[in-house]
Amino acid sequence: MVDGHYDNIDISIKSEKEAELMGKENVALAKNMGVETGHYVAVVNKKDLKTLDVFIGDRVKITAGKKSIVCVVDATEWMVKEGEVGLSKEAADKLGIKKDHPIKVKVMPAPIPESVEAIVKKINGQSLTRKEIGSIIRDLMSNALTEAEISAFLVAVEINKLNMDETVALTNAMVNSGATLDLNQKYILDKHCIGGVAGNRTTMVLVPIIAAAGAYIPKTSSRAITSPAGTADTMEVLANVEFSMEELRKIVTKTHGAVVWGGGVNIAPADDKMIRIRRPLHLDPLGVMLASILGKKKAVGAKYLIIDIPMGRGAKVEDQNEANRLAKAFKETGTKLGMNTHVLITDGSEPIGNGIGPVLEARDVLSVLSGKGPIDLREKSLLLAGKLLETAGLAKEGKGYGVAKRILDSGKALKKMREIIEAQGGNPNIRIKDLQPGKFTADIKAEKKGRIEHIDNKNISRIARAAGAPSDKGAGIYLYRVRGDLVREGDKVLTIYAESEEKLSQALKVAKEFPPFLMEKLFIGEL
Amino acid sequence: MVDGHYDNIDISIKSEKEAELMGKENVALAKNMGVETGHYVAVVNKKDLKTLDVFIGDRVKITAGKKSIVCVVDATEWMVKEGEVGLSKEAADKLGIKKDHPIKVKVMPAPIPESVEAIVKKINGQSLTRKEIGSIIRDLMSNALTEAEISAFLVAVEINKLNMDETVALTNAMVNSGATLDLNQKYILDKHCIGGVAGNRTTMVLVPIIAAAGAYIPKTSSRAITSPAGTADTMEVLANVEFSMEELRKIVTKTHGAVVWGGGVNIAPADDKMIRIRRPLHLDPLGVMLASILGKKKAVGAKYLIIDIPMGRGAKVEDQNEANRLAKAFKETGTKLGMNTHVLITDGSEPIGNGIGPVLEARDVLSVLSGKGPIDLREKSLLLAGKLLETAGLAKEGKGYGVAKRILDSGKALKKMREIIEAQGGNPNIRIKDLQPGKFTADIKAEKKGRIEHIDNKNISRIARAAGAPSDKGAGIYLYRVRGDLVREGDKVLTIYAESEEKLSQALKVAKEFPPFLMEKLFIGEL
Repeated sequence: MVDGHYDNIDISIKSEKEAELMGKENVALAKNMGVETGHYVAVVNKKDLKTLDVFIGDRVKITAGKKSIVCVVDATEWMVKEGEVGLSKEAADKLGIKKDHPIKVKVMPAPIPESVEAIVKKINGQSLTRKEIGSIIRDLMSNALTEAEISAFLVAVEINKLNMDETVALTNAMVNSGATLDLNQKYILDKHCIGGVAGNRTTMVLVPIIAAAGAYIPKTSSRAITSPAGTADTMEVLANVEFSMEELRKIVTKTHGAVVWGGGVNIAPADDKMIRIRRPLHLDPLGVMLASILGKKKAVGAKYLIIDIPMGRGAKVEDQNEANRLAKAFKETGTKLGMNTHVLITDGSEPIGNGIGPVLEARDVLSVLSGKGPIDLREKSLLLAGKLLETAGLAKEGKGYGVAKRILDSGKALKKMREIIEAQGGNPNIRIKDLQPGKFTADIKAEKKGRIEHIDNKNISRIARAAGAPSDKGAGIYLYRVRGDLVREGDKVLTIYAESEEKLSQALKVAKEFPPFLMEKLFIGEL
Repeated sequence: MVDGHYDNIDISIKSEKEAELMGKENVALAKNMGVETGHYVAVVNKKDLKTLDVFIGDRVKITAGKKSIVCVVDATEWMVKEGEVGLSKEAADKLGIKKDHPIKVKVMPAPIPESVEAIVKKINGQSLTRKEIGSIIRDLMSNALTEAEISAFLVAVEINKLNMDETVALTNAMVNSGATLDLNQKYILDKHCIGGVAGNRTTMVLVPIIAAAGAYIPKTSSRAITSPAGTADTMEVLANVEFSMEELRKIVTKTHGAVVWGGGVNIAPADDKMIRIRRPLHLDPLGVMLASILGKKKAVGAKYLIIDIPMGRGAKVEDQNEANRLAKAFKETGTKLGMNTHVLITDGSEPIGNGIGPVLEARDVLSVLSGKGPIDLREKSLLLAGKLLETAGLAKEGKGYGVAKRILDSGKALKKMREIIEAQGGNPNIRIKDLQPGKFTADIKAEKKGRIEHIDNKNISRIARAAGAPSDKGAGIYLYRVRGDLVREGDKVLTIYAESEEKLSQALKVAKEFPPFLMEKLFIGEL
């Protein structure tokens, strides 16, 4: 146990040379503990800790042959014997140590990594150089930073901000942390939505329109973490979404378009490593957010970009000032990174499309591509696609919507989508009726006559999630009504779909606690 | 793997009620993994993670009978089987699960703790209420906060500061997190030094003087973390230092004074839990530092307090402005907490006393108490003791030094120290010659004639540490010279003591890289 005062004299080890000078080296038998911790952890016997002069939470350098990693130390009295060291799965994998095949390693105290000084600088309100930002991302990628240190960096950026040069440096460092795509084409277009709206599968309508227009659009998308579906989850109903960067290159070279899971192609993985810290604290510092989003566009070689910022009640961005600020930041940073960037602020106050959940959303998408489908999904997709074509100079100003509409109405977008589905290993002849949502259903009806005042993105998501989405592809919600609709008592407002009776009843319980929609109150008060 | 976008729609669980509603409950066999991680960790099989709908780094609530704890999740494919859960030692101990005695528990997704919202508030620059600060300390103590969250709080406080009300609330929350001492006496005095100076064992001279003057001084001190000795390490040469709060009460009631290890009596343990995060980042936010130090004084019931802020080259505080700012903060906060607080800014630019390392320092202390010893240690101790007596009204203004000097010179302080040593289980008749430093020694001599310009606290500490201090009690350094001394070529400046040949040679290597003293340069430059 470390006692309660900040240490009297701080002589923490700063460099590897110093570590070697001060440090005592142990030889130990390293074994794979098979536990995934998200970073490099070494479990060391307490007696060895004493010899090494390190404490729980300190770092040790572990060397096996020519490979070295830095691990954070956990302690044990018996789980690992003296002279042994137990490694987390990530650490063991890195050193190539397999289950039940321990190997001899060298263990020594490791210095605090260089980038920690850069983090301290940011805490102190100073600007960081490109090199310092690079060191943070490098140490992040090699698991040399603890979660406490990553968190410190994110909070410091949240409060002290990043300037433009720092943001550009962070973006480039993130791009360089992973794979990149070089299509060697002039017209590489891309699109991003900052999220917060249920349904909203515009990407799957926009991508085939852009590709059918002759441009390239190698779209990487996310899976849901806590929401009922990400674009990648919905696309997965129609085709595979997990590809390597090389496979993505082949698909896009052939069809001009793709919708794949971003986690599979390994773009900007540095960003992924921060997500776990950012989520519970709702930490989404502007500079990191810009670097994260724009880095993924730059990594696929995008030159023209449209950003969708949904705004409104219950969306991620709730007011106009914040939306404007964000729009300006995207535009400036995107441009600085060499991408022609156009930003649209859209209505994000209620879901887009009728279906929520992978299968139900995929049905909406195919329906819109067939010239039918939910009008809001169709119109928003055409608007975004049109503006993107204008941004790239592939349509004259004011004419993009018309170009996109013609491509959609001619059936070329649907044909392109079938090509993409085929290229991604799906069935190109799939029909809407092949996509069946869950068999267990329950309707939610209006309890009285009146007007629907609000449909809540978050509560809709909670209910769909409780019903089993996204892992149960057929689970979700179908909305019959939009905000402003007049309904009579007993009118169906939505149907919940689930793949089991149990999950359906779970979703109904959640719906009771988190109402999916609100009726207009006729009387607000009375005297 | 969590993919690279911040989640589309954030519906993270906020309350226990919501968790119950959304969550799926598993029954599992929980076993003690015997690994100390510093917090509560549950290793869950990947298949169970899917059922529970949680990711690595999320939280689960584990219930065994009437006891519940919240753990952070690590994942495994084989280390823990489906239907089992492996707990870190801390978590298993809390639930009473012994090695090889697994028990049935309930596992369910846990909400993000309440206090995380308070942390977010602080990140956003808002002030926290007493209740919110209390929730942070409570969740910290129950291990409900992750290291990332604790770090976020500390960085937010570092940048956005705590106001006086917040600092007082944090101090009180820290006091309430552990044991307190109620001596029921009027004159309870205490002393703290913010550190950074090698040697500097004034506490062990001051405590018997104050106790001999009739006041009470229940002094809790620290062990070294990275330095060659804390006061507790040095006192341990003469007596035991690990006592419970009840034992401390008995000792102080009997002898009026004590010098014990703060970690043993369990005062303000909340502070200890933050140390691990603060150390690598050098994070010592003023508000937390004040709460940490003053909380420990308040916990023992101190009413009169002297704070020593050493200032100067190589000390923790290097300039006058910072020292003044710190002094003002201590004075104001101490007063607000009901302690009459006096602050002294002292010369911290070189070591105090001749010995560095537990045995060598203990010899200095006994020597000063016997009326001899290093003059700087004697004078500084008398100055501090005198001012403390004045602060408590036990000596008239300007007369404290004289009162302290008479107590020291009369032999009463030495007699009192022997009583304290006996009460703490040591040998009251111990003589200086019983305290022998390490047998392996090496002298470091002046390489040329000249004046000593600087003796470096940090490098002295590095060398003493490399020689084996503090775990080898006899290891350390003896300084023959102070800054400003004229020396001839070949004059001994210091001796390194070690308990093994190997450590002596290690210390010599360190001394070569980190020079313990600098000679004045006669020529700075020449044209």
